[in-house]
Amino acid sequence: MVSAYTPPVQTLIDELGRLPGIGPKSAQRIAFHLLKLPSADVARLAHAINDAKDKVRFCERCFNVAEGALCPICADDRRDATVVCVVEESRDIVALERTGEFRGRYHVLLGAMNPLEGIGPEQLKIRELLTRIDAEGITEVILCTNPNTEGEVTAMYLARQLQPLGLTVTRIASGLPVGGDLEYADELTLGRALEGRRPVDDG
Amino acid sequence: MVSAYTPPVQTLIDELGRLPGIGPKSAQRIAFHLLKLPSADVARLAHAINDAKDKVRFCERCFNVAEGALCPICADDRRDATVVCVVEESRDIVALERTGEFRGRYHVLLGAMNPLEGIGPEQLKIRELLTRIDAEGITEVILCTNPNTEGEVTAMYLARQLQPLGLTVTRIASGLPVGGDLEYADELTLGRALEGRRPVDDG
Repeated sequence: MVSAYTPPVQTLIDELGRLPGIGPKSAQRIAFHLLKLPSADVARLAHAINDAKDKVRFCERCFNVAEGALCPICADDRRDATVVCVVEESRDIVALERTGEFRGRYHVLLGAMNPLEGIGPEQLKIRELLTRIDAEGITEVILCTNPNTEGEVTAMYLARQLQPLGLTVTRIASGLPVGGDLEYADELTLGRALEGRRPVDDG
Repeated sequence: MVSAYTPPVQTLIDELGRLPGIGPKSAQRIAFHLLKLPSADVARLAHAINDAKDKVRFCERCFNVAEGALCPICADDRRDATVVCVVEESRDIVALERTGEFRGRYHVLLGAMNPLEGIGPEQLKIRELLTRIDAEGITEVILCTNPNTEGEVTAMYLARQLQPLGLTVTRIASGLPVGGDLEYADELTLGRALEGRRPVDDG
């Protein structure tokens, strides 16, 4: 009786199963998909993995992904250095940049506080953020961590660290998604949307 | 404004997004996870991908994954050559082997018929199965394709090809999962379970 896969296949399944959001069944499915693909396609995937890891590092200033010492945003001197948007991950920067609404710089924490997984302030790029405040003459920090438990805890912690420094510290708004339907909103979102109500601007 | 990722990151996201069951959001998540991992871990994943693809091929007889010309099951002469279990993928063999109930050989179709995706009998290892019947003295074929539309269509097609050859052709049973709850079974499964009812063995 054969109770497991041949070793190279098992190793591949194990390695794929370590990726976030990939369970054992998905890992199997992806592994067999790769075995059926033309060799050139598989080599391209392996190369993309190695290449990204070789070429990409984190921006020395804000920890966004970068190919040089600074990321394209930090290297762009038309960006307003006095306003910094704090995010959990580089991918949040891409989302915020798509809005075209923000002309300042960013700071990537590379995660959010999560005591259950042993992620405290020391595991995040918080000390590096505090160092930037004086060095760059930052006057406003917008906390754009995710509106979930980890993101809120991180935002609260950062607010307590930053407010004594005399900065303007704001939190990105929570509320109903644009185009959403009040009837289908969950009660937490709806509660936040009410809490964050603003006077109607009839200008 | 930066509207996309730096090229090596975008290439990695694109390549990951081609994998089955990985959407654009998961591809982003995995890509940034890889960028944060130690280089050795990332190199191990890329190596596992290349290594599996280099070393693993398909068994010349049954199309199971194999490191040599024959897979471990075809190479084992204690297995009964007269009974063949037809499956869609190699991973189905691992599942069947775990039951310890089957001592025959297998035949992997490398997929199932799916006209919408252009997969007909010619795209599967069906001709190769028919060639095996005489060559190996096969007397019974158990159709173990999945109990979904594609698997059923494939099983019906195979049954029509195999029955004229005077073989015993059977289909693996559908029904309630062991330990399952009748109340929560969907009506299709329940219908199949009723259809497949068997006399109670009071031996």
